[in-house]
Amino acid sequence: MTEMEELLGAIGEARARLSTRLQPTPLLLSPSLSARCGRKVFLKLETRQPTGSFKVRPALNAILARLDEARSRGVLASSSGNFAQAVAWAARELGTRAMIVMMGSTSPLKIARTRELGAEVVICGDSFQERWDTTYRLERETGRLMLHPYDSLETIAGDGTLALELLEQHGGGFVALVPTSGGGLFAGTSAVLKPAGASTYGVQPEANGSMARSFAAGVPVQVEPFRTIADSLVALKPGETSFRIARSSAEGVLLVSEEELARAAAHCALQEKLVVEPGGAAGVAALLAGKLPAGSADVVCVLSGGNIGLDRLAEVAGGSG
Amino acid sequence: MTEMEELLGAIGEARARLSTRLQPTPLLLSPSLSARCGRKVFLKLETRQPTGSFKVRPALNAILARLDEARSRGVLASSSGNFAQAVAWAARELGTRAMIVMMGSTSPLKIARTRELGAEVVICGDSFQERWDTTYRLERETGRLMLHPYDSLETIAGDGTLALELLEQHGGGFVALVPTSGGGLFAGTSAVLKPAGASTYGVQPEANGSMARSFAAGVPVQVEPFRTIADSLVALKPGETSFRIARSSAEGVLLVSEEELARAAAHCALQEKLVVEPGGAAGVAALLAGKLPAGSADVVCVLSGGNIGLDRLAEVAGGSG
Repeated sequence: MTEMEELLGAIGEARARLSTRLQPTPLLLSPSLSARCGRKVFLKLETRQPTGSFKVRPALNAILARLDEARSRGVLASSSGNFAQAVAWAARELGTRAMIVMMGSTSPLKIARTRELGAEVVICGDSFQERWDTTYRLERETGRLMLHPYDSLETIAGDGTLALELLEQHGGGFVALVPTSGGGLFAGTSAVLKPAGASTYGVQPEANGSMARSFAAGVPVQVEPFRTIADSLVALKPGETSFRIARSSAEGVLLVSEEELARAAAHCALQEKLVVEPGGAAGVAALLAGKLPAGSADVVCVLSGGNIGLDRLAEVAGGSG
Repeated sequence: MTEMEELLGAIGEARARLSTRLQPTPLLLSPSLSARCGRKVFLKLETRQPTGSFKVRPALNAILARLDEARSRGVLASSSGNFAQAVAWAARELGTRAMIVMMGSTSPLKIARTRELGAEVVICGDSFQERWDTTYRLERETGRLMLHPYDSLETIAGDGTLALELLEQHGGGFVALVPTSGGGLFAGTSAVLKPAGASTYGVQPEANGSMARSFAAGVPVQVEPFRTIADSLVALKPGETSFRIARSSAEGVLLVSEEELARAAAHCALQEKLVVEPGGAAGVAALLAGKLPAGSADVVCVLSGGNIGLDRLAEVAGGSG
């Protein structure tokens, strides 16, 4: 069995596991984006998942795949915020305990929500190195089951359930624009869509660019730390597995500027009346900036997360509303 | 033919007229409100109509019902904001010219959007008396076709199309919570839902209370000017026709405080990830405040509008997020 066959099997299993626990999220036509682009544009509202992002898919699947172990050992994860909340929620739903390692610089809203969901939050220093060092140390010290945010089979399989849903809702033949960071959602989506005849682009902040550079180099490339308003798209390097799968299944990676991300979040709030965090609006950013190659196929923008405070949203969107 | 029979016929005609021009708006299950209330709660996203509110239904219907006249004379309307944008949009769609009378105190966002849509905006003094005086004067001076925001048969019939959509989407047997001001949407909704076996409550700011007092008195009651964060629910008196119809078809009127409206807008933004103006969230406010009489029937909150700037939304929701 090839890696891809194994993954597609795991995505099918994930779908069955999650079907009683998550409702399909809405797929809405955007008349304003459709008019602007001259082709039908749909929005996939992962913002309406429990905890406000798609991350409940991989969190639930990763715990359910090893439920007895998760219950006896507790779970451990590290996250820039959305995976943290999702793991906290999934752990509570499934009767286990979550410990989450987060940087002090993470959005206060995301830290507060993670605690409200009952997780023990361990704050570490403000670098990925410190976050991973802390996480691996806690894994050894506590014996908890570690859930990888983007680079395990269970994570990518959970992510891939989104694409199965899209195929049922739309039918196929579309182009999906997927915000990407470590690459889990990008991998899971493209793995499902390619054999179904739909295509996938990852969209990433220019400030990051690690996935785009990795696509060009043919191997995962690590970038230097950077700042972006897309605080959910900050992995410095794609995962090994997620990169391999995405590169073999996706069309490519589009880069968007900070201003384009801000404009997209403003568009979502003011025109679409949807609260979307800048990282979650990356697909819309690429579309509004004319970065998607021309074509007539329908477009689906995955709105991957909506966890942003209103003050921050007003600030981000202010210059571009 | 009774007034009600005439109205139901007009709603059917409106449905046929609007069917090629407006997409049905989404009806989404709210897991968080359902969990809180112990019954299924759905949200009807009129925020996703063109111009961000349900008002395109009555605006389009009122112009289409007298299209030749509208085209030769131009149209005239007065509005606190959402009807203004809707008439401007509908006039542009249908190839006629709109003049809109708005108070200087109206939300700057709503005034700017109305102008962007090509309407001529006439700013009047900050009282309803001045607004109506200006509007009637302009009707005489310009010969334009005046569109009433809530008290004509065509307006109420356009509003009623929302309820036909709800019945198709849900099936029936639910309780609808409808923000109410002059009463057009309240009347159109309850007229359709009552014979179909679903019930309707109007929801109004306590600061206003004109519809609640009118229900109690049995005749339209005018209240003194007041302030509310629900800037779309500011009519001082229900329309004669809209009141008569709503009182004969609806269950009653629920009142919500300013704090409850703010909390509802915050809930919509932070939990539902939907941008809803405080007035548009009045149904959610009543529900969160426990003001809906107990029962087990599903609840539908009509989110009637989403036209609010992000700074203002942050300010309103800030104390209650």
